Amino acid sequence: MKIGVYQFYPEWGQKEQNLLKIREAIYFHKNVDLWVLPELCTTGYQFTSKAELTALAEEFPDGETAHEIMQMTADLQNALIIGVAEKAGSDVFNSAAVFEKGNFLGTYRKIHLFYKEKNYFTPGEEIPRVFDIMGARVGVMICFDWIFPETARTLALQGAELLAHSANLVLPYCQQAMITRSIENRCFTVTANRIGSEERDGEKLVFTGMSQATDYTGVRLAQLKEDEEKVLIADMDLALANNKNITTMNHLFEDRRINLYK
Amino acid sequence: MKIGVYQFYPEWGQKEQNLLKIREAIYFHKNVDLWVLPELCTTGYQFTSKAELTALAEEFPDGETAHEIMQMTADLQNALIIGVAEKAGSDVFNSAAVFEKGNFLGTYRKIHLFYKEKNYFTPGEEIPRVFDIMGARVGVMICFDWIFPETARTLALQGAELLAHSANLVLPYCQQAMITRSIENRCFTVTANRIGSEERDGEKLVFTGMSQATDYTGVRLAQLKEDEEKVLIADMDLALANNKNITTMNHLFEDRRINLYK
Repeated sequence: MKIGVYQFYPEWGQKEQNLLKIREAIYFHKNVDLWVLPELCTTGYQFTSKAELTALAEEFPDGETAHEIMQMTADLQNALIIGVAEKAGSDVFNSAAVFEKGNFLGTYRKIHLFYKEKNYFTPGEEIPRVFDIMGARVGVMICFDWIFPETARTLALQGAELLAHSANLVLPYCQQAMITRSIENRCFTVTANRIGSEERDGEKLVFTGMSQATDYTGVRLAQLKEDEEKVLIADMDLALANNKNITTMNHLFEDRRINLYK
Repeated sequence: MKIGVYQFYPEWGQKEQNLLKIREAIYFHKNVDLWVLPELCTTGYQFTSKAELTALAEEFPDGETAHEIMQMTADLQNALIIGVAEKAGSDVFNSAAVFEKGNFLGTYRKIHLFYKEKNYFTPGEEIPRVFDIMGARVGVMICFDWIFPETARTLALQGAELLAHSANLVLPYCQQAMITRSIENRCFTVTANRIGSEERDGEKLVFTGMSQATDYTGVRLAQLKEDEEKVLIADMDLALANNKNITTMNHLFEDRRINLYK
């Protein structure tokens, strides 16, 4: 299975322009089966009011962004996971929307909000989900979810073969930690991060790029640079992730001592 | 607080000789407050029968090894955590024994046994413990426990400021993963690994050294080489680990969504 990441510099508030860039990238690499795109990569990341965020947010699958992606994935017969601002009633969620071959499969609503996201987004209230995508089991997580080992574990215990991690990382530790996530869960991982910076209300955030893919044993398959706008493609035999035997006598999940954990 | 690690090459089955080496190392560095020593570092690591293991194992605190360490820590007014084969009735546990200023504080019995340890050792049946040592809260874990994020988490949630990790590592991933453990729990960590190799019954294991100390933000404070017999000393202000605020709006433990985890 060919997993693609498009690491790019989303222009704040320019949804049409950002979607056009995404369209160009994915039509240029038609052999990719599943795309993973950064967090909030159509709207931009930083908001200064709930009204501003709400104006850019959309319903899924009823909004224009969803319709465009359904058309793209129908046309290319592939799948795509994209970070979006999801409007639902008066709430806006920091979500990853999942599409496959013209169909909307659902969203994962980020459960661990980072810093000022708490001012404007509503936290998700559902257990992180594993989606059946292109014949594979794909667990979806967003950015700050990485620091809580429970997130990746929750997805792996539901059978995730791949952890698809949509991100706007500003801290420098995550890319290395995702290697640990792959080792401790024996899952493939892909982190799609953005590049560039945003300055809003006097607060400047610099995003760290370095999007990467790892195999299920913690080997880094590919990594982009911190400032390049580029596609990463990794070929993964995801079924390998179902082998949880670290040694002939150690099964990663059966060896857990769940009665002895806090 | 000065934490010391003695990374060395234990001679299989030579308990007196190994204890003598340990004695020399710790008397040479009298300023260390707490020593962390490798797993099974008085007996050696690989056993070919339960009888062989039982012959080398001792009761704690009634055995000769415990008595020697009580005398050393009384004399030096320090503390010491050491990996030992602990006999209890017909069971032998892969344990870390904890001593402070001449007193035996208890053992942690390894709950995740690796590979052929399962043939001869009994797994621990108690929740990993945090010990009050020299005024600090020290969580104790052994070797393969590292791969299960639940171990470090269980200790951190009980207030561990330092994760003291006694190890005989043969896989190459752990030292990097312990950096993730420190970041995701905001705990200091110290991994005391052995060096050298053991060949028993035709199976040769090579131990990876590279003992290390990290601070509570994932910064590696010091690391030994893979083949050197040497003392590592790290000065740690362990109280810093009680600050779980990653940002002004993110508390690492309060932000956990425990109802949304599997």
